[in-house]
Amino acid sequence: MGFTFAEKIIAGHAGHEVHANDCVVVNVDVMMASDTTGPMTIRAFQEMGGVRVAKPKKTVFVIDHATPCPNERIAALHSMIRRFCGEQGCVLYDQNWGVCHQVMLENDEVGEGDLVLGGDSHTCSYGAVGAFSTGVGSTDLGAALLTGKTWLRVPETSRIELTGHLPKGVCAKDVTLRMIGDLRSDGVSYESVEFAGDGFARFTQDEAATVCNMVIEMGGKNGVFLSALKRPDLMPDEDAVYKRVLRYDAAAVVPMVARPHAVDNVCTAAEAAGQRIDMVYIGSCTNGRLSDLAAAADILRGKKIAPSVRMTVCPASTKVLLAAIDRGYIREFLEAGATISTPGCSLCVGTLGGVPADGEVVLSTTNRNFKGRMGNKNALIYLASPATAAASALTGTITDPREVI
Amino acid sequence: MGFTFAEKIIAGHAGHEVHANDCVVVNVDVMMASDTTGPMTIRAFQEMGGVRVAKPKKTVFVIDHATPCPNERIAALHSMIRRFCGEQGCVLYDQNWGVCHQVMLENDEVGEGDLVLGGDSHTCSYGAVGAFSTGVGSTDLGAALLTGKTWLRVPETSRIELTGHLPKGVCAKDVTLRMIGDLRSDGVSYESVEFAGDGFARFTQDEAATVCNMVIEMGGKNGVFLSALKRPDLMPDEDAVYKRVLRYDAAAVVPMVARPHAVDNVCTAAEAAGQRIDMVYIGSCTNGRLSDLAAAADILRGKKIAPSVRMTVCPASTKVLLAAIDRGYIREFLEAGATISTPGCSLCVGTLGGVPADGEVVLSTTNRNFKGRMGNKNALIYLASPATAAASALTGTITDPREVI
Repeated sequence: MGFTFAEKIIAGHAGHEVHANDCVVVNVDVMMASDTTGPMTIRAFQEMGGVRVAKPKKTVFVIDHATPCPNERIAALHSMIRRFCGEQGCVLYDQNWGVCHQVMLENDEVGEGDLVLGGDSHTCSYGAVGAFSTGVGSTDLGAALLTGKTWLRVPETSRIELTGHLPKGVCAKDVTLRMIGDLRSDGVSYESVEFAGDGFARFTQDEAATVCNMVIEMGGKNGVFLSALKRPDLMPDEDAVYKRVLRYDAAAVVPMVARPHAVDNVCTAAEAAGQRIDMVYIGSCTNGRLSDLAAAADILRGKKIAPSVRMTVCPASTKVLLAAIDRGYIREFLEAGATISTPGCSLCVGTLGGVPADGEVVLSTTNRNFKGRMGNKNALIYLASPATAAASALTGTITDPREVI
Repeated sequence: MGFTFAEKIIAGHAGHEVHANDCVVVNVDVMMASDTTGPMTIRAFQEMGGVRVAKPKKTVFVIDHATPCPNERIAALHSMIRRFCGEQGCVLYDQNWGVCHQVMLENDEVGEGDLVLGGDSHTCSYGAVGAFSTGVGSTDLGAALLTGKTWLRVPETSRIELTGHLPKGVCAKDVTLRMIGDLRSDGVSYESVEFAGDGFARFTQDEAATVCNMVIEMGGKNGVFLSALKRPDLMPDEDAVYKRVLRYDAAAVVPMVARPHAVDNVCTAAEAAGQRIDMVYIGSCTNGRLSDLAAAADILRGKKIAPSVRMTVCPASTKVLLAAIDRGYIREFLEAGATISTPGCSLCVGTLGGVPADGEVVLSTTNRNFKGRMGNKNALIYLASPATAAASALTGTITDPREVI
C-alpha cells in the first residue's frame, strides 16, 4: 500500500515512516508570523522560557495586516516585532513588502519539500510550490520557534482532479469556489488535499496559489499541486490510499460567487446577477497577484466603473505593484475610477481601510465573507474572481464576466 | 489711501467699498468641506432649517481625510455625505481623488478672484491662484451652504517680500518655516498676507500653494501670491496700508525644520542634524504635489533608505500619482524601500494609517506637528521640506539635504 504526499513529506521530517492518523513530531523548515499573530507568538515563546529562536534565518515575520499602521496600539505591536527580529536575527519583512503569503512565495522563503508552519490560516497557500504548509495557533508557533519542531497528526488525503481547459472568463477562483460549494466548509476537515489532473497541471503558480490558499475554507490541513512536485520521492504512490477522489471538468466550470455570510454559500455569478454592489475590492493573498490584476485590467481597460461603486485595488506586494505599474494596469485602474491601496492585507480583514457602511454590499476577491470580516457586521460580502469583480464594478451589479468580454 | 488685495476682493463680494476691520456680509463663490467637517456642516445646514443648498454646483465635498474608510463609524459619515451630494446636486470627489486642497486646485474648482470658504484650516492654500480663501467652522460653513453668503471682518494686511533665488536644496517649505519661526504661530493673527517680490514671483503654483497653505500656521486669515493676480482690479494699490512689511533674501534661506510640538519651534536642519528618526512621511496638501515628489525622488534615486526608517510617500492626488508613475518616481520610491499610500490625507492627521509608536520620531512634510497629530501623543514630529525628508530617510537622522546632493 503506497503513500500520499502528506505521508511522504511528513515521514521525511519525522525521520521514520508514517501513516495517516499517526501522531508524530517533525522538524519544521520554515516558520512565519504576521503582525496579527506575531506578538502572540513572541509572548508564547517567551512564556515557554524561550531565549533564542531555534532557526532564526528560517523564522519570518511579515508586517502586513495593518500597514501603514492604523493606531498606536498596533504601532506598539509592530515595534515589538521589529525589536524581536533585531534581537533574534529573524527575517523581517516590514510594511513596505506586502501580504505575507505572497512575500513568502516571491522571495523564495518557501520551496518544494519544505514543512512550513504559519500563524495565519492561509499558510496552506505554499502547496502551490510543493511545500507542506499549514496554519497553526500562536502558541504552537511559539513552541516551534523555540524547538524548531512541532507535533501533528498525519492527515488523511483527498484527491481532486481537474481535466481540460477553463473557458475564457473563468478563473482559478471559480474552480475553488465551486469545490468549496460542493464540499462545504468542513468537507475535508483536517485532510491533506492533492490537486491533480491535466487541468490543474496547466495552472500557473499564481493560479495554484489561489486554489491552495482556500483549502482551509473547505476545512483542509494543507493542499498541494502535484504539478509543482519535481522530487520523485514526494510524489504520491499510485496505490496511495485516498479518503475520496473528486473529478471536475474544467470546461464545465462557470463564474461563481460565495454569498453572505459563508464561503460555501455559493451559486453561479449568473444566478446572483443583478445584485446591487456598493464596493468592489480586488486584492489579498487569494487574488492580488499580477495575473489577477491582469484579468481585471483586461475588463476595465478604457472603461469607467459605475458611479455608485467604490472600487479599491490592492496589489498583494510591492513587487506586484511595480510589475502592474510597468504593464500599465495601475494607470488603467486609476483611470477607470479605482483607488489603489498600499500593498498588504488592506481591506480584507477590516484592520486598515475600506470598511463598508451599514447595509452596503461588497464584492471582494478575498477568501472570507464572514459577518464583520471587513470591519462592519452590517455589511454583506460576496466573494468572486477578479474578472467577476471587474465586470461587476462596471455595471454596479453582480455580473458574469462573460457578459462583458 | 489705497486698498489691499483683501479690501478689494471683499469689496467686490460685498457690493461696496470696505476697509480693514469693517464687518461685512459677502457673497461666497465656492464652498468646500472634507469628510471630517462635511457631516457637521450638513447637520448645521439642516438644523438651520436648510432644505436646498444655495449654490450646489459651487458646493464641493471631498472625501479625503479617511480613505479608504478606516471604520464603520466613518463609513456612516461618508454615506451621509454621498447621500447629501446626491440629493442636493453638490459636487462630490469620492475616495479616489485625493487631498481636498489639491483636488480643488487641479480641477479648477477655484480660481483668481474667488471668495472661498472651506471647512478645513488649510483652505488658505488657494491664494496660490489668486483667490481669497479661508477656513471656517462647520456652523459658519453650514450657513454659507444655506445662504450663499457669509459675514467676516475685513482683515488688516501684512506684506512679505522675497527677493532673489533660492539656493539648490532649499525649498518653498524652508521659506515657509523660516517665516513662521520669525513671526511665530500668532504673528499675523486674522491678517491677510500678501506674498510679493521677485523671489515669490518666481515660485511655481505648487510652491505658492505650499506657502499659502501654511499661512494659517502664522495665524493668518488668508494669503495670496500677488504674482497669481492677472486682474488689475485685484492688485493692491501702491499706497495700500500694511500692518507690517517683512523682507527676505532668498539666497540666505537654508533648510529648516520645525521641532516638536509646535510649527513655530523652528531651527535650521543643520542645527537639528543627527537627530534619530524612525519614520519619514512625504505627502499632504502642503508637500504632496508632483514637484515635491520630484525633489524627493532626485535625492532617493538609486539609493536605499536607512533600514531603521519606515518611509511612506503619499501623492496628494490620483492625478499626482499618475504623473509620478509616468515620471518613474513611484518606482524609485518603492525601490528605495518606501511605502506608497492611497492619495488623500493619509498619515497627516492620524485618521488612517502610519501611526507612530510611543517614543518614535517622525520627520514629516506636513503642516502641523502638534502633540498627537499623527495619532500618538507620545510620538515626536519634526516638519521639513521633501528634500530634507528624503535626505534624512537615507541617513536615518535629520540631514541637511545639501549634504547629499
